[in-house]
Formats: sequence, structure tokens, C-alpha cells
Amino acid sequence: MLDPLRTTDAAPASAAQTDEPGAAAFVRRHIGAAPEEQARMLAVLGYSSLDELTDAAVPEAIRSDEPLALPAAASEEAVTAELRALAARNRARTPMIGLGYYRAATPAVIRRNVLEDPGWYTAYTPYQPEISQGRLEALFTFQTLVSDLTGLPVAGASLLDEATAAAEAMTLARRVAGAKGAGRPFLVDSDVHPQTLALLQARAEPLDIPVVVLDLYAAAASGAGLPDAVLGALVQYPTSTGAVHDPAAVVAAVKERDGLVVAATDLLALTLLTPPGEWGADVAVGSSQRFGVPLFYGGPHAGFMSVRTGLERQLPGRIVGLSRDADGRPAYRLALQTREQHIRRDKATSNICTAQTLLAVVAAMYASYHGPEGLAAIAEQVHGRAAALAAGLRAAGVDVAHGAFFDTVLARVPGRADEVVARARAAGVDLRRVDADTVGISADETTTAAHVEDVLAAFGARPVADAPATVPAALRRTSAYLTAPVFADYRSETEMLRYLHRLRDRDYALDRGMIPLGSCTMKLNATVELEPISWPEFAGLHPFQPAEDAAGYAELTADLERWLAEVTGYDAVSLQPNAGSAGELAGLLAIRAYHRDSGDAERDVCLVPASAHGTNAASAVLAGLRVVVVKTDENGEVDLADLRAKCEQHAGRVAAIMITYPSTHGVYEEGVREVCATVHDAGGQVYVDGANLNALVGVARPGRFGADVSHLNLHKTFCIPHGGGGPGVGPVAVRAHLAPFLPNHPLASKAGPPSGTGPISAAPWGSAGILPIPWAYIRLMGAEGLRQATQSAVLSANYVAARLREHYPVLYTGRGALVAHECILDLRPLTAATGVTVDDVAKRLVDYGFHAPTMSFPVAGTLMVEPTESEGLAELDRFIDAMIAIRREADKVGAGEWPREDNPLTNAPHPAERLVEEWAHPYSRREAVFPGAVSPTAKYWPPVSRIDSAFGDRNLVCACPPTAAYED
Amino acid sequence: MLDPLRTTDAAPASAAQTDEPGAAAFVRRHIGAAPEEQARMLAVLGYSSLDELTDAAVPEAIRSDEPLALPAAASEEAVTAELRALAARNRARTPMIGLGYYRAATPAVIRRNVLEDPGWYTAYTPYQPEISQGRLEALFTFQTLVSDLTGLPVAGASLLDEATAAAEAMTLARRVAGAKGAGRPFLVDSDVHPQTLALLQARAEPLDIPVVVLDLYAAAASGAGLPDAVLGALVQYPTSTGAVHDPAAVVAAVKERDGLVVAATDLLALTLLTPPGEWGADVAVGSSQRFGVPLFYGGPHAGFMSVRTGLERQLPGRIVGLSRDADGRPAYRLALQTREQHIRRDKATSNICTAQTLLAVVAAMYASYHGPEGLAAIAEQVHGRAAALAAGLRAAGVDVAHGAFFDTVLARVPGRADEVVARARAAGVDLRRVDADTVGISADETTTAAHVEDVLAAFGARPVADAPATVPAALRRTSAYLTAPVFADYRSETEMLRYLHRLRDRDYALDRGMIPLGSCTMKLNATVELEPISWPEFAGLHPFQPAEDAAGYAELTADLERWLAEVTGYDAVSLQPNAGSAGELAGLLAIRAYHRDSGDAERDVCLVPASAHGTNAASAVLAGLRVVVVKTDENGEVDLADLRAKCEQHAGRVAAIMITYPSTHGVYEEGVREVCATVHDAGGQVYVDGANLNALVGVARPGRFGADVSHLNLHKTFCIPHGGGGPGVGPVAVRAHLAPFLPNHPLASKAGPPSGTGPISAAPWGSAGILPIPWAYIRLMGAEGLRQATQSAVLSANYVAARLREHYPVLYTGRGALVAHECILDLRPLTAATGVTVDDVAKRLVDYGFHAPTMSFPVAGTLMVEPTESEGLAELDRFIDAMIAIRREADKVGAGEWPREDNPLTNAPHPAERLVEEWAHPYSRREAVFPGAVSPTAKYWPPVSRIDSAFGDRNLVCACPPTAAYED
Repeated sequence: MLDPLRTTDAAPASAAQTDEPGAAAFVRRHIGAAPEEQARMLAVLGYSSLDELTDAAVPEAIRSDEPLALPAAASEEAVTAELRALAARNRARTPMIGLGYYRAATPAVIRRNVLEDPGWYTAYTPYQPEISQGRLEALFTFQTLVSDLTGLPVAGASLLDEATAAAEAMTLARRVAGAKGAGRPFLVDSDVHPQTLALLQARAEPLDIPVVVLDLYAAAASGAGLPDAVLGALVQYPTSTGAVHDPAAVVAAVKERDGLVVAATDLLALTLLTPPGEWGADVAVGSSQRFGVPLFYGGPHAGFMSVRTGLERQLPGRIVGLSRDADGRPAYRLALQTREQHIRRDKATSNICTAQTLLAVVAAMYASYHGPEGLAAIAEQVHGRAAALAAGLRAAGVDVAHGAFFDTVLARVPGRADEVVARARAAGVDLRRVDADTVGISADETTTAAHVEDVLAAFGARPVADAPATVPAALRRTSAYLTAPVFADYRSETEMLRYLHRLRDRDYALDRGMIPLGSCTMKLNATVELEPISWPEFAGLHPFQPAEDAAGYAELTADLERWLAEVTGYDAVSLQPNAGSAGELAGLLAIRAYHRDSGDAERDVCLVPASAHGTNAASAVLAGLRVVVVKTDENGEVDLADLRAKCEQHAGRVAAIMITYPSTHGVYEEGVREVCATVHDAGGQVYVDGANLNALVGVARPGRFGADVSHLNLHKTFCIPHGGGGPGVGPVAVRAHLAPFLPNHPLASKAGPPSGTGPISAAPWGSAGILPIPWAYIRLMGAEGLRQATQSAVLSANYVAARLREHYPVLYTGRGALVAHECILDLRPLTAATGVTVDDVAKRLVDYGFHAPTMSFPVAGTLMVEPTESEGLAELDRFIDAMIAIRREADKVGAGEWPREDNPLTNAPHPAERLVEEWAHPYSRREAVFPGAVSPTAKYWPPVSRIDSAFGDRNLVCACPPTAAYED
Repeated sequence: MLDPLRTTDAAPASAAQTDEPGAAAFVRRHIGAAPEEQARMLAVLGYSSLDELTDAAVPEAIRSDEPLALPAAASEEAVTAELRALAARNRARTPMIGLGYYRAATPAVIRRNVLEDPGWYTAYTPYQPEISQGRLEALFTFQTLVSDLTGLPVAGASLLDEATAAAEAMTLARRVAGAKGAGRPFLVDSDVHPQTLALLQARAEPLDIPVVVLDLYAAAASGAGLPDAVLGALVQYPTSTGAVHDPAAVVAAVKERDGLVVAATDLLALTLLTPPGEWGADVAVGSSQRFGVPLFYGGPHAGFMSVRTGLERQLPGRIVGLSRDADGRPAYRLALQTREQHIRRDKATSNICTAQTLLAVVAAMYASYHGPEGLAAIAEQVHGRAAALAAGLRAAGVDVAHGAFFDTVLARVPGRADEVVARARAAGVDLRRVDADTVGISADETTTAAHVEDVLAAFGARPVADAPATVPAALRRTSAYLTAPVFADYRSETEMLRYLHRLRDRDYALDRGMIPLGSCTMKLNATVELEPISWPEFAGLHPFQPAEDAAGYAELTADLERWLAEVTGYDAVSLQPNAGSAGELAGLLAIRAYHRDSGDAERDVCLVPASAHGTNAASAVLAGLRVVVVKTDENGEVDLADLRAKCEQHAGRVAAIMITYPSTHGVYEEGVREVCATVHDAGGQVYVDGANLNALVGVARPGRFGADVSHLNLHKTFCIPHGGGGPGVGPVAVRAHLAPFLPNHPLASKAGPPSGTGPISAAPWGSAGILPIPWAYIRLMGAEGLRQATQSAVLSANYVAARLREHYPVLYTGRGALVAHECILDLRPLTAATGVTVDDVAKRLVDYGFHAPTMSFPVAGTLMVEPTESEGLAELDRFIDAMIAIRREADKVGAGEWPREDNPLTNAPHPAERLVEEWAHPYSRREAVFPGAVSPTAKYWPPVSRIDSAFGDRNLVCACPPTAAYED
């Protein structure tokens, strides 16, 4: 009675289960098609209800019709109130703990107009660069920032966090060493962040990389105890406890031993200190968090890596490069893209396939807003606070360990560390308890004189008048940085606001229209889910604050773990992995550890179907497994005969199979239970990639139909937005026997089992700051709403397939000629007949006002379409009509009516500027830019025409343009 | 040392006065031009510092160089922390108080994408309709909503609040009655909201309208006690205490007596009740607050008025009408515009010159999101809660006063009202204490069964099973409403998000570029100032909650009153006026009351210079004053000789003079002290219109140079955004002798002096919810920052004047040939020479990417430019270059190179669609749309071409389009 939004009886049963006003109203807001529209779509397919469609599409063997045990759906208002109650149980105090996390003042203009702006956060990864120029420019700025400050010429567009960036540097060093690297150790200075060290060790072990921890500065100085040859060495600069050492001896010693020097470093410190690139580091890594990104209880933050010339092709993750478009305009794109979405399986440089774009944008804009002089002033101020702390301590007779430091002071208080930490805490400030005798204090840009006074008081000390700076003259930075115009032009809020909006307006995000990317699930990211992440009670917590300050987070994460386990049918969940690739690796490491624990250390074969996501194989390699490919049959399903053969061939060695369900071909495979059984019979574990969970929630549970482990993509199925290319969150869910082998964390005992496999992310709960999003989504939808969402997604995909089938063959279908939540349109016949390529169709869709579907994955020459449950019938029809119109255009090319080299497809997309030029095309200007139903008043104008990828790769420019040629 | 943003010594002294990090950094964010840019601008003018320029421009007689006694500037972080501390002292509980204010569930997608989106809130009033189509469409939807629900064909685009709307209806009735209306009373039913009644009485008194309060239903039924002829009558429907009466007898009685029937009504109730238009009301008024707008402690909310056919030209405020553009496209515009910005002085229908656009947009979008079936369901639910309350009370033997009601139940509890209210309050719910024996309870869409239970418990009652609906069958609504597509098409959040962004993207707001409107001060609306208004602790308070729940507001308003008094040099400030026009009226009423109190009741002449804002005269009329115009001399200054003559002519009758300072001619008049003295000598008071306070803050104080009263425009000088045409806030500031005559409020004793002139707005603190904005602005800037802002504004205006002077004569200047904060460019010689009009230049500026300056005010044929302090040098130069380029284009027309009827000026603006059509113009497509430095990738595309105003006025369409012709 209280649901104002259900109007027809044809509608699926309402999810209303409570008396609360509008409790189930959100389901109707999330699902795009109205009940009456769904009835029409079902009629096209010949079904009378969503349940009937589900019964037809989903194999009975896996179908689960029992309702999920989740709290009843609640209204937006109620969920917000619950989240406010959780938030009220967190306490954002004044953390001066350091360890790679610092309070930062996010300029409000950036918070509102990037972090809270759907134009930025609902954008997809910039694989279609013509409609992503805004965020590509912002990422280019990020790269320039990292490159300039680290003094290394090539920086990537962000990594997941500092600790994983360090691990990536280690594996980079291993790759560079090649065959001769086998057995060589990777040295790690003992004064790196403990979570970095633990993560390095966890990653090194399956790769057989010996990690040697030592006082590198002492060893380099004495020459004693260093092996003859090394892969490389990691030093932290400044060190974790704050020291600024001269790295010259370490560099010499490592280079002498054929190794790469990796510096984990701090971008703010590098405004004052000689950058790693100038003292001989080959690689720099770190976190850009303190550049305006909230603490977020540990994440998401943009990690970074930069490298010297010669290593650019070894850089993991994405690089944005400058290229040019078909008309000669400068244009940004992802460079060297084959390492990316089409990740090269086990030959990949990394399993990373996301980034932290949204946070990298924030960091870049923070740098742009402050500029070099502003950043230097902030750094001086931070250093001044630290110097004031050190001077006050010394004056009170406290031993300050390091003579030279940037922001962190290490105080020796034998036997008194706990007491000092407690006293500071009573004054509202949390310090780092290094050990019983030692306390670390880190200043940041928000540290005031009052904080300094409070901290000193905790030591029984007082501020003193004279606090000399401590950066040694020899390590004072002298080189210029951030000299590009972007770091000078936006100093007023008005200018910054307009710049942010100009960038945003160049891009196509979900706020404009459908982004029907197969497997990527660009569904609604509801505002009510997003709002809480800005609240200071969620955004302001340091990951290593005492647990009692984070009671709200503890309850939220416990709820979410329980709910995700319920949804997937597993027994335990770790929220730590901060990307799908990390979750995947965590799952494989759990499998590996389980086998070892069971005495099956020889099990090292990972079976991967030919249709798998490229990351699967890349993750398997990182987990120390050998990849063996299993064939898929003509229907796109796992070839059971081949699977059996491979299991036999590798008898006793099979560790796991990694499958995706529904398969990457977009169908519910009938034989999945048999696949699972076959592998189990061979002693292997079954890994189900959760990429396609949007087709399963509420309908089937992998943990119940035979799988042992899955990672989930909270940024797909559970509504965390894609952020223009990250953050992602990739929890790993396991059955009970694998639970002891989930990730844990050296600094947070509650973050995982003591028997766990070590950290998989830098922070104990990974990207904790955005976990309110999936929590809210599940809370808003309830069990029935989640099921309806899945059913609606499947309905939409089948509707698109049914209406497009006669224009583009649908490559794979399952039971009842149905697809699951996505469909693959085969363009190969069209290309053969007309010469029009997948690229032409994708770019022409831009002219029609759409983001292209996934191109040529998992099958070259195809488009994979996932409409999701959030698109309404009008938008689905608009897309279908556009695809049909494009088919007709292609036919004109095929018929010779339009030349192959001059037609609206080949010339797509058409920026506005084309219209003011001479027009000698065989089609009209109107056909070019307002085709089909495109409204001139709601037109998305691509800022550039088709981008020349090859040119960009041949001429790699990924930072600091030499001229302002491509500026507005 | 800690200010990272001051880089040159040429810069004015930093405002840093504290040790706090970045304390003065905000000043640099607010002021657009960097210190080094200001040095260049000063050099162009021949001055070496801002102070030197100030000394040259501002008459010594008024200049005040003593620093304002304000708290030192604080950083964004610190100000946010202080506001959070204030917010924490407010308590948003569960108000079931009613009285025109109800909790509403603002859909998060609307909160984030309208209320919190600079694309909406930084837009100006849609006087340039070609670049305002988005919000005009939204306002058209609002009008349709009001018109449909009230059943009256013509609705305006919003009024300030319900009480003032009722007052406007009364004065409308007075106008309609004409000469025969003199002395006729206006009847008011005794069961209207008390603040409405008090405001009506306050407005009626100076206009000599007798207000008769009576039980209209009883009187109409008996016929007894009614006068023979009336202006009209106001009934509340449902009544303030909740009754739903059949108004038939009242309507008959009022019409019989030649009066208009005015219904104060509730839009949500009208989804269930027969609308006023169907039972004979001539006018409906009310508030749309409960359509998704936060309580805001009383405002801002969009009031509304709709009228029957025949009264449309009497409607006060703005009306959006549908017209067509030069190419025949349907296009929205403000209809009947002469009543508006160019308000017809004392002939005006009202002094209203703003609206509540932003809130009207929220209400319209709320209706669009829910649709008619959703709104009806909400109304049924609300009614169900009220019915449950009534049934429970009756079952417990409590007397429920009204048999038929919608959302409000009136309970009679003789002698127990205080006790019941206290008990409910202890359970977290606030009720309305009507009197010692009576309690009112109002349900709203957020009321739950638990609330009902808590309230019943406070009466010693319990819920009962059977709670029959109480709407009488005869008053059940049967007519359809909200049948336009806009109320059906956006039911999912994805669709709503895209619709909101499409509308926004059609408009030109400050997030795109400069809006150099003279007198309107389109300066930065900083995000950090705006963020707090969404916090529930500010947004969630009911204006009539007990004062103890609003301690944070009390402190904030006290601070703000004190600071504004300090800035202006006055002694007391009332924050109640929720628009400049309201502040103006409040100031004049204070003057009037002061004279009466002094025994000078005969003083009724208000002197108004010829150059005054049209509202000045209109307000004077509302205050019962006669307007006498004073001449201005050839320099645009008040003609002192004429002033003296007028004072002599009206000796003993002079009540006041209303001047603007700097004058509306944009100069600091030398003689202002003499003007003040002359009027004072004549026994009059001096009213200084605060419209141009942006040229005075920190430089001169009207309260110290001779004025007695001013209203301030917090939405101009103090950074409240214009919201696309409201809300405004217009506090009135007075010297001590006028303080006893400031507004007060019948329901909030602390809101004004007991001797005050009654309420000027419905809520005690007017638009309290947005007062954090000016509070934050003053707190962020500090005294020195505010002064710098003024100086920078004056610098920018003079820089523009200096650079444009040779292309367009600057009409008026003051000392040293300087202007104040704005300059008037005289286009009349250009028009004479070339035929190119002000309109042509204004519309051509759109092609160049600008909002036009103020057109033909205060002098026809001119453009008035106010660049404000927030525009940087690059943007100023871009504007100047565009104006020069346009001058050259005009010269080509003058030289015959381009025909008068076909050139880029006459044809401006050029929508994108023009480019795909045949092109037979003597200029190129590129010249048309990418003139000057316009970047094709950052182009603002006007959605329509020039709009035909006359056509729209001849064919007034202002609601519910008969066809979908103008839909996308």
C-alpha cells in the first residue's frame, strides 16, 4: 500500500516488507524500466514474467530460488539515517601517525566538483579516448606531477596504493633481470613502512624472490653483508620513521650489484628534497594521498610509479600519452594499450587492470590549485611543525632519533611509549607507537601550533622559540618542478571551478547516457549511496587509528562481509583487496596456501579457459602457478573433454581452474557443475571470477554450485562507480576451508586470520572509505530488490539481443536461445561485406550520443553489450535504433553508395569544428552530427576526431608538454 | 610566512593574522586576479597600489580606513570546523508542528544535482532567455505543477513564501477593485496560519486596507456580520489547524460582495482534495516546501500564486511563458517582462523583483520524479498517518476537533496541552501548542507508524486497528493533474540525473564564465560557503521548534547581525527579510513607524532620484508613501538644487530619501553627505539601497556617512548564489533610533523588538537555511580580505572601463575619471552609426561565450558591466577582447560590408543547428560560432536562437503544453 511506484499487476512482486514509508521505492529508482515497460519487453521475448524468463535462462542445476537472508529493503531516508548512526560511532580525531597516511585539506571546490560530481565519478575507464579527453588531461597532469616531483621522466596514471606499487617495482626489477635474475634477492631497507614490507614478502614468496631486509644505509656504507648480485633494492625516502638519509652509497652499492634502485617516496617532501631521479633511483613509488585526498580509513588513494628512460615499457598499469587525431589536433589516449584491457595473460607485466583515476584526478587538481610555490609553502610549513616538535622535545631532554627529517619525528622514550601515546590521545592526537621505547610523530598540512603544543605536552615538553629546519643542504632540492601552465593557471576558485567543468564536459559519463560495456556493468551509482563517503566521520579516519575510534566502520564492514557471503553462498569474505585483480590474486594465494597446508605443494597448474579475462592468467602467474589453457567449444562453453584431458595430463598438479560465470561469452553455461566436479575430482579448487555476478545475485550462488572462491567487483555489481577508471574494490569470498588463508594485515589483527597470506593491499580494509556505497545498495534493495535487479539486467540484455539479432548476429546464446546479462554482437560478417570495422561502429556511436560497447573482447571483431538493469526502455530503444541506423549506414558503404574511405562511419566521430570547415563529403553535415534521433539541444560534442593510436605509441609523450600546443 | 599564495611584494598586505595554516589563503581563492595581475591592471590605470586607487576613487568625506572589527580570516578547514561546531548545537528532531512547514524527503539525486550543483545555483535570473532554457523549462514545470494542483490556469514562477504570497493576493485584490475598493475590507478566516495573518496586517496597515478577521465559514453560513462589499477573502484550505471545510458558502458570500476569493492551500493535499480553481477561488497561494525542499529553519522555500483567467496581468513576480525563437523553435522566456527587472516604479504590481527559483526547481523536479501517482500515494500515506492519530486519540477519549482533515489533527486536551507537548518532545517529536487546551499534530511523508505511536503515547493513547480516511466525498478530487510528459518520463534515478544534467547544460552559469551584470554582483560563491547548507543540522530544523534546539542558529545569526552592523556602520540588523525588496520595505516601514512614533504621521513623501532601481519606488508605495522623483544632473548625480527644491516643496512631509550608493550610475557621488544632510535637515530619513555595497565594504560605511537605514543583498555582496533567480536574502540594517521598528514575529519573540512592525517574511529568520553562506564568507575573508575584495572589484571595473573606453564611451565617471565597481558603456552612438542595438551586442556576446551585462539599465541604450573581484585578468581580457571584436563587427555593418539585416550580430546567437543548414550569410560559419578566441572544445552552445518576445506575450502559454511540440 505504501509503495507509490508500482502501478501495474504485471510488475514483479514489490520488495516492500516493512511499514516504513517508501521502503521499497528505491528499487524502482534503481531499475530503469518501469514495470509496464518490462511487461512490453517480456512480451517481445515471449515470456510473461521475470521469473519465467529466469527459469528459462538459468540452468536449474545452479538456480537458487530461496530468498537471500538480508535485511528488508529500506528507504533512502532510512538508509541515510542508519549510515549517519554508523558514522556517529566513528571518531575522526587528529592522527599524527604517519605511515603513509596524512590529513589533507581537500579544497572544497575539488571535493564538490570532482569527488561528488557524477560527471567525473560515473565515467568509465578511458578506453574510448575521443570521449574521455577531460579525465585523460587530468591524468596527464597527474603523471606530470609525479614525474616532475620524483625527477623521473615517465610516470603512470596511478597504481592501487603505495605498498602494491612497491611490489610492482619489485616484480619490475625481476622482469628486467630476466633469466639471470633467478634466485637473486631483492633488498629492502628495514625502515620502510611495515605494511609495505609485509606485502612485498607476501608477493615475493610465490615468485621465489628472496626478500632480504637489512639496514641498507649501514650495509652500503660498510659494504658488509651485501650479496654479489641483486634484483634491486627498496629504500624509503624519507624513511618510515622519518629520517632523510643521503642515498648515494646505497645507489652505488645496488648498481654495482646489477640491481635497480627503487625509492618509496613522498611527493610533498620532494618539493624540498632532491628527487630520486636526480640521485640515481631507477623507479619511484608512493602514494599521492596527501595531495588533497581524504584519509578514507586507508583508501582509496592513488598510488604512483615513475621510472627512468628505458623502463617505460615495463611500467605496470596505465599510461596516458599525447597523440593526435585525424584532423591533426593534439589528443590524449592510453598509450601502449595492449598491456591494458586486453591484458596479455601470463605475459603481462602485471595483473593490474584498474587504476585510482578519481583520486589521481583529485591529487592532480590539488597540485594545480596550489602550484609549485603553494606546495613548497605547505611543505615548509609541515617541516616547520616537525622541526618545532623536534626542538621542543630536545629542549626537554627527549632523544630525537633522526637529525634530518621532513615531517616525521622519531622520539626515544625508553619504556614510556605507551604512556606518551596515551597522553597525546587524551588531548585528541594519535601518535605512532613504534615500539615500547619509541614514538613517531608526523606533521601534515592541517597541523597547527596547538597540535604541536599538545603533542609536546604529552612528552612533558613545551614549544621553544628556535626550531631550525633540518633538511641537509646537500639534499635540498634545487631543480624546478610543475612548470607547465596547468600548475599556474587555476589559482582562484572561480578559475578552478571552470577548469574542472570544462574537463568534465569533454567527457561522456553515465550522466549523459548509456555506457553499455560488456562485463563492466555500468549501472546506476545512486546519489544516496555516494553521499556518505564525503562525511568526515567516514572520510577522516586514519587506517591505523585505534580500533575503538572506528566502531562504525567495524559494524559496516562486518555487515557487508556477512551480506556478501549470503549473496554469493560463501562462508567468509575479505574486504581488503582494493581492486578485482587484487581479489583474484588473494583468492589464488588462498588456494595455493590451502594446497601447501594440505601437503599438496606440488599443485601448481592453473587451468584457464580460452575465453577468460586476461587478468586471470596474469594473476595466476603472480600466485606462482603455471597457466594451462582449456579450450572452449563452438558455443563458447568450456570444452569438457579438453578439461578432462588437461586434468589427466596434469594429474596431481592441478591447483585450480579459473572460470567466469556466466562466461565471458555472456551465457549461463549448462555444464558449470560438471566443470566444478571435474576439477574437484582432480584435486583442484574452483575459482569463479565474479566479474559477471550481476547475472547471479539473487538467482544463483557460486559458493553453492561448486565454486570454492570468487572475487567480487563492488565497483560493478554493487554500485561503486567506476570513477573514470578506478577506484575498484575486489573483495574475495571463500568457502570455509579456504578462510584461514584470506589476507591479513601486520598492523590490524582484526583484518584477517592469523594464518592468512599477508596483506594484499596497503590498508587493512583496502578502500574502506567507499564501502558505504555497497552497504547502502544492499540495504536499499533488500533480497527481493537485488533479485529483481539481476532479472531486469537479463531481461534488458535479451531484449537488446532480440531486437538487434537480425541486424547483427548474436554470437553465443545458452538455454532457450537466451543470453545472460550481456550479449556479443558479431560484426565480422558486416566487416567482411562492407569493410566497416568494429572501430568504425564504436566511433560512430559517439555521433549518435553513446559510449561504445566493449570492443573485440572476448572475441575479436565483436561488440559486447551489457545494458544493465538501470537503463529504461526508452534508452535501450534509443541505443537499438542507433545500432540499426548504423547498420544501414554500413550497408550504404557496402553498396558503394558511400566510398569506403569517405563515409560517416570512417570519419566518425565528428567534432563540432568539422562543421565550419569545407564540406566535401558525400553525406550532409546534419547526417554527420545529428543522425537518427539526436537532439541538437542535447548533443554530446566529441572534442576531437578519431585518435591516431600508432602515432602516439611511436612518439610517447606522457608528461610535461614541451609546448602549449594542445592547450585551449 | 604561512601564506603560500602571495608571491609578489606588489601584492596588498596579506590578511593573515593567525598562526593557523593557510588562514588567509582563501582571500586569494576568492579574488580572481593574482597580485601580479593586479599590479599590471593598476599600471594600466596609473596607480601603484589598491589603496592609492581607493584614495583616488572614493570621496574622502565618506572613506573609512579604520579596520573593521571582525574576527581574523580563517582557513577553509577552520571555518568548516567552526560551522560543524555550530551545527552540532542545532538539533533536527521530528517536527510535527505543521504551520506550513513539513519534513520532506529530498531525493538525493535532486539534492546533489540541483541544490548542490554550481551549474544550477550560480546561474543568474533568466533575463537572457536564450542561455537560460534549462531553468526556464524547470520553472515552467513548476508553474504547471501549481496550476494543475490548484486548478487555476495561470501560475507564476514562485514567490518568496506563503505569507507574503497571501499579502500579494490581498494587494492584488485591492488593485482589481480599483477606485471603488477604497475602504473596503479584506476578510481573513481566523483559522489561517498566525504568521500569515500577522504579515497581512502589517502590510495592510500602510495601505489603508482594513483587515477583518472572523470565522468566515460560520459567518458565510449565517450571513451575519459580513460587510456589504469586500476586496476579497482569504481562507486556508485545509485550515491552519487542519480542518477541511466545504468552501461553497464562503465563495458565494464573497462573490456576492464583489470580492476575490483567495485560498491559501497545500499542494500535497490538493492531490486528494477538490482544487480551489474548481470550487470558485480566484487566487491560490501557498508554499511548495514540502515538495522535497528541506525545512531550512524556515526558508528559503518557494511560495506560489496561481490565478484564474483574467487576472494573469495582475500576477506579481515572474511568469515563464512559451514563445519561439528566430528559427521557429519553441523557446521559453519570462513573459510580460516589463513588470520585472524594469519594474514600473510606483505603478508596479508589486515590489517583488526576485523569486525562489532554486527551490521552485527542486519542487518541480520532486513532482516530476514522483509523478501524479506517486504524489497521490504520498498524500494517501500522510493522510493515513493523520487518520491513525485521530482514530487513536478518539479511542482514548480525546476530543478531535475536526471531522474532516488532511494531514493535521487538532486535539482538545483541556489544561493539558503543555504536558502533552512535553511528553511528545521527550519522545523526540515536537507538536504544535495551539493554546493551553489544544494541540496540533501534523503528519508528513517521513512520518512512520512509530511516530504515530509515540505521539499517541504522549496523549496516553494507542494505535487502533481501524482508522478511516476523513476526506469528505464531496471534496474528493476527481480531476486529473500532472498529465504532461515531464511528470511521467523520469521515474528512475538514471533518467532523472540525465534530465537534470541536460537542463543544466543548456544554461550559462558562473561555472562557464563571467556574468558581468551591473549591480547584480555575480561573484564567486565558494563551495566551502555552500556546503553547510546541506548538513541536516542546518537543513532539518523546523522554524517553530523550541529555541533550545537551535542554539547553533542563534549564535550564527547573532554573529552575522553583529558583523553586518560592523561592516555597514549601523547599530542593528534584522535578518528576517528574505529578499532585497523585503528588506527595502522593512526599512521603509521602520522609517514610517519612527515618524509616527515621533508624532510625525504626516510625513509621507519618499524622495527617489530618477536613476533609482524601480523597486525603490514600488516599495515606497507599499509602505504607504508618496513617491516624488528627484532629478539627476548630467553627471548622473542627484541634483542637489532639485533636492532642495523638493524638500522645500514638501516641507514637513518628507519622510525619506532612497538613494543607492555608489549610485546606479556606478560612481561614488561626491555629494552624498550633502544629500543626507539636506534630507535630515528637512526632517527626513536617509535610506541607502545596499545594492552596491560591493563597492563599500571595508572602504566606507553608510551608517557612518549619513544614512539611517539600508537593506543589504546577501545574495550579491555576501556570496549567497543567485540560484538562477533566487533565493535572495535582504537583511535590513538601521541606526539605533530605528531599531525599535525592525520586523518581529508573532511566533518567535527573539526575532525582533516587541515594538517592531510585524513580520516581513513568513519565517522568523527568513531564509535562515542559507545564512551559513555569508557567515562563512565574512569568516573566511576577515576585515582585510573584505576590503581587498572591494578594492579589487573597483580595480576590475576601472580596468574594463579604461580598456573599453575608446571602443564604447563610458557614460559616467566620478573623481579622477574613475568609476566605482561597475561601469556603463554607452552604445547609443554605435546604434546611431551602425543600427546595431544593445540587444544585438548582448546576444552576440553569447556566441563569444559570455553572459551579457545588464541591458539598458539605468539608461536605455547602454550596457552596465560589473566584473566583480572574482574574475581574473585572463577572463577580464577575454571579455574586453570580445567586446572590441564585436565593436569591429558592428563597424562592418556600419560600413555596409555586412547588410544590416544579415550579419553575425543581428543573427546572434547562433545555435549549433544553424551550422548544418544551408549557409547564405555574408560571414562564415566559423565567424558565426567560433569568433575571436572561442575554443571549439570549450564552446557554450545556445540551444535556441534569438527569442521573439512579442510573440510570447501575445500568445501567453505558461503551463501544461497542449502538445509535446517543444519536447526534446
